Amino acid sequence: MTTDQDHADVPRFAADGLQAFTADVLIHLGLPADDAERAAEILLASDLRGIDSHGMARLPHYVEQLRIGRLNAAPEIRIVRETASTATIDGDNGMGLVVGPFANELAMRKARRCGSGWVAVRNTNHFGIAGYYPMRCAENDLIGLAMTNASSLVAPLWSADRMMGTNPLAIAFPAATEPPVVIDMATSAVAFGKIVLARYAGESIPAGWAVDAGGAPLTDPQSFDNRCALAPLGGSRETGGHKGYCLASMVDILCGVLSGACWGPFAPMFFDLQSSAESEVGKGLGHFFGAWSLDGFMDADEFKRRLDHWINVFRQATPAAGTEGPLIPGDPERLAEVDRRRNGIPLAPQVAEQLANLSAELGVAWRQ
Amino acid sequence: MTTDQDHADVPRFAADGLQAFTADVLIHLGLPADDAERAAEILLASDLRGIDSHGMARLPHYVEQLRIGRLNAAPEIRIVRETASTATIDGDNGMGLVVGPFANELAMRKARRCGSGWVAVRNTNHFGIAGYYPMRCAENDLIGLAMTNASSLVAPLWSADRMMGTNPLAIAFPAATEPPVVIDMATSAVAFGKIVLARYAGESIPAGWAVDAGGAPLTDPQSFDNRCALAPLGGSRETGGHKGYCLASMVDILCGVLSGACWGPFAPMFFDLQSSAESEVGKGLGHFFGAWSLDGFMDADEFKRRLDHWINVFRQATPAAGTEGPLIPGDPERLAEVDRRRNGIPLAPQVAEQLANLSAELGVAWRQ
Repeated sequence: MTTDQDHADVPRFAADGLQAFTADVLIHLGLPADDAERAAEILLASDLRGIDSHGMARLPHYVEQLRIGRLNAAPEIRIVRETASTATIDGDNGMGLVVGPFANELAMRKARRCGSGWVAVRNTNHFGIAGYYPMRCAENDLIGLAMTNASSLVAPLWSADRMMGTNPLAIAFPAATEPPVVIDMATSAVAFGKIVLARYAGESIPAGWAVDAGGAPLTDPQSFDNRCALAPLGGSRETGGHKGYCLASMVDILCGVLSGACWGPFAPMFFDLQSSAESEVGKGLGHFFGAWSLDGFMDADEFKRRLDHWINVFRQATPAAGTEGPLIPGDPERLAEVDRRRNGIPLAPQVAEQLANLSAELGVAWRQ
Repeated sequence: MTTDQDHADVPRFAADGLQAFTADVLIHLGLPADDAERAAEILLASDLRGIDSHGMARLPHYVEQLRIGRLNAAPEIRIVRETASTATIDGDNGMGLVVGPFANELAMRKARRCGSGWVAVRNTNHFGIAGYYPMRCAENDLIGLAMTNASSLVAPLWSADRMMGTNPLAIAFPAATEPPVVIDMATSAVAFGKIVLARYAGESIPAGWAVDAGGAPLTDPQSFDNRCALAPLGGSRETGGHKGYCLASMVDILCGVLSGACWGPFAPMFFDLQSSAESEVGKGLGHFFGAWSLDGFMDADEFKRRLDHWINVFRQATPAAGTEGPLIPGDPERLAEVDRRRNGIPLAPQVAEQLANLSAELGVAWRQ
């Protein structure tokens, strides 16, 4: 999450214009119109929810990957195995922003028919913010879940090697009159962007965020190089780093091992245009989607009223000294979206310049 | 996890004898023989796996709860809602050690029939170690998952109140020639027992473990009283405490809200014999069980070979300086079990004395 203060001096752009531009760019590069619209919607959902790292900032990179054929603009997505409540999908090296919605909708259909639906995905790529997918479930009286593995950047507890990605998991629960509870979290201690921000600010970082080339805690972000790694959630053994490592393992096994995708250190590198989507252990990145029908457990209305009550009780818990009290999972992103829908999306000058360059190079009008 | 060194001077007892004694005690108190045998098996699984807090040490308390009728020795467990892949169960205030296996087996049956099975449980009680249940799944070519909510002891990030339990989640994945990957973790930074141990040792505790009555980090375990709380996994905001709070919320909503059980601060207190299993928001504690059939996603043998490969690659990751390298989730508990099956279970003198007293009071032979 970034805050409004971080963007006080940055020009803001209307979400609709950015989304239309993104869709036009993707259509220009060969995506079918429906896929392009959906992919643009997911990218903008990230910017709207304040997760600047996963939205428009990534478009130039996706464009490059599409141009060189590293991403398949028009994948033939196949269901390779299926039961009433499960399936495995091969994404044909399409954009995760295209393959992800296909798989998520399949999980939702299965949940409507038999109570729950589970879809493992291989041969796919980065799918944007994990939280986008379960939020679609929550709009339909389903509890949704999404995970993905990712390029290796995180060391297991007691290792010095980058062995796993930030491997996020997201889950969303629909309420009645309250907004949904939306959990969307990396299983690493922090995102890589936090190291970069500390470096820019010339500040040290807490001991639980990263490890050096020897696997020891690293506190000077200036010395974080490609032999260093992020730490799992929890940091050291004393503060629960084994638990973050366990969660990242769970995500990697469900997304990578179970689907036939690459896993662990074999996951394709996001920023390496040379790397292939295949490795000796599988194909592409892996995702895992799930949906439970509320009605499979209790009347949907009853669940949503109960969740309203839960939300209100937690919101009213006594604040810790010096704080405004606990948030409900999803609050910060929801508040960011209210602001950004009203006032526009703040883009870093470098990102705005890259998008303007894209517009000129591709001959796709920059719609503002 | 406790280690062998912790128990160097403690007498050890054969697991078989303890298990038979436990079953006899439970039968004496009115449990059907099959239920008693299973409950004893689960309690001993905890001691065998080195989780001393959840095994024999709890038997005297269960006995007291059964004696005063706080636990129902012979519950009529009912399926109150069901679809092909989901169900909700009312445990009739039975022991979690009896209701849990019923629900877990229902999830397993559903997974065999339609790819996955999910069972929410209300009106139940503490079910022992969460890891026991998914391990049964892993023995049957299923991926298993179990969660439970628990008596409130943990403060949400930015709150000073005990609002949720240590809310563990467990998941197990079967491998081919390697032992299964077994994750079993509380979503709090640490278990309460860690505070107690630090108190005995006269040591301070890290800032991320607990908060004082005002919600500020607490480092002196001597001052931890019933107005203080454990911190969620991650500790402070800076080190990811919001993520541990999110995970604990996920467990509480799936186990408590979705099943019709009590949730959050309304969960019945384990050590308060006066407290009722019901509250204004629901009945008893809540569990949530899940199982996925490997064959629902890929050939079971292929998955298990792939997981062997994953395990071997992670085991061979470069050790961090001063460590022996990363463990595979489940390693410490598995190694404890090898030792304890061979050499017996070390019981703290107070626990051994309580069990001997139980034997005398109930007239149930102490089988050693």
